Amino acid sequence: MFKKILVAVDGSEISKKVIETAAVVGKGNEAEVILLHVGEEINLYLYPYARGQLLSAQYNQEYNETVQKQAKELLQIAKEKIQANGIHAIDVYACGNPAQKIIEYTKENPIDLVIIGNRGLGPFKEMMLGSVSHKVSQLANCPVLIVK
Amino acid sequence: MFKKILVAVDGSEISKKVIETAAVVGKGNEAEVILLHVGEEINLYLYPYARGQLLSAQYNQEYNETVQKQAKELLQIAKEKIQANGIHAIDVYACGNPAQKIIEYTKENPIDLVIIGNRGLGPFKEMMLGSVSHKVSQLANCPVLIVK
Repeated sequence: MFKKILVAVDGSEISKKVIETAAVVGKGNEAEVILLHVGEEINLYLYPYARGQLLSAQYNQEYNETVQKQAKELLQIAKEKIQANGIHAIDVYACGNPAQKIIEYTKENPIDLVIIGNRGLGPFKEMMLGSVSHKVSQLANCPVLIVK
Repeated sequence: MFKKILVAVDGSEISKKVIETAAVVGKGNEAEVILLHVGEEINLYLYPYARGQLLSAQYNQEYNETVQKQAKELLQIAKEKIQANGIHAIDVYACGNPAQKIIEYTKENPIDLVIIGNRGLGPFKEMMLGSVSHKVSQLANCPVLIVK
């Protein structure tokens, strides 16, 4: 039923459970697993007031290099865990707003299921910001499994 | 992985997809499926101003009998569909607030997965009321699969 599974990977504690769940569900469905991590890089040109002041171009570059390095590591570890179960896995790195990028991916690709963790922001933060999992479950083009 | 699956059943269009998904996921996991329908019965004693005015005791009783009859029919149809896949299924009827009753069930019973439909209330109604699926995905004691 779920032949193409998109798995949202981040560095959070719940992400470990998301990957474990993806391994079991992926195996049971003989699925292909796409591991997606969205890095929140800084683009100085979006914050012109900060140029040369709070943020230097060098800091910006170093920050983004760190984000990309962590993304690569996270995705590599996740991919090895998924592949250890005999599942075909690929990894994708995107940059921007996490919920938006995950939703975009389900709209641009034939995805049968998204697996994502519930961060548990608490009622107030949740109300103000909306959790990533909530936005994805509302707007993705396919069923969404929220892991807790 | 998901040996006990709680499936929220109502009369909505999406509920058909929820039951189809429950059949496939239940079969794949050799799971037991619990079909839960929450009927929103009226209790006149909660609305004393309405007694003998807007609502009569007789209307109240008839309304609740209709709610219960529909619940029984919905659950019976759902159970037959699930059982047709060789899955052990039971049905449960509860009365009250849907999100609250579903969440309570996951807290009082060993449930591995909830399958529920996303009604798609639209941004405003969703913001004001919160959807049942959102509340359940936030507060249930287990992973939640939101079907669309």
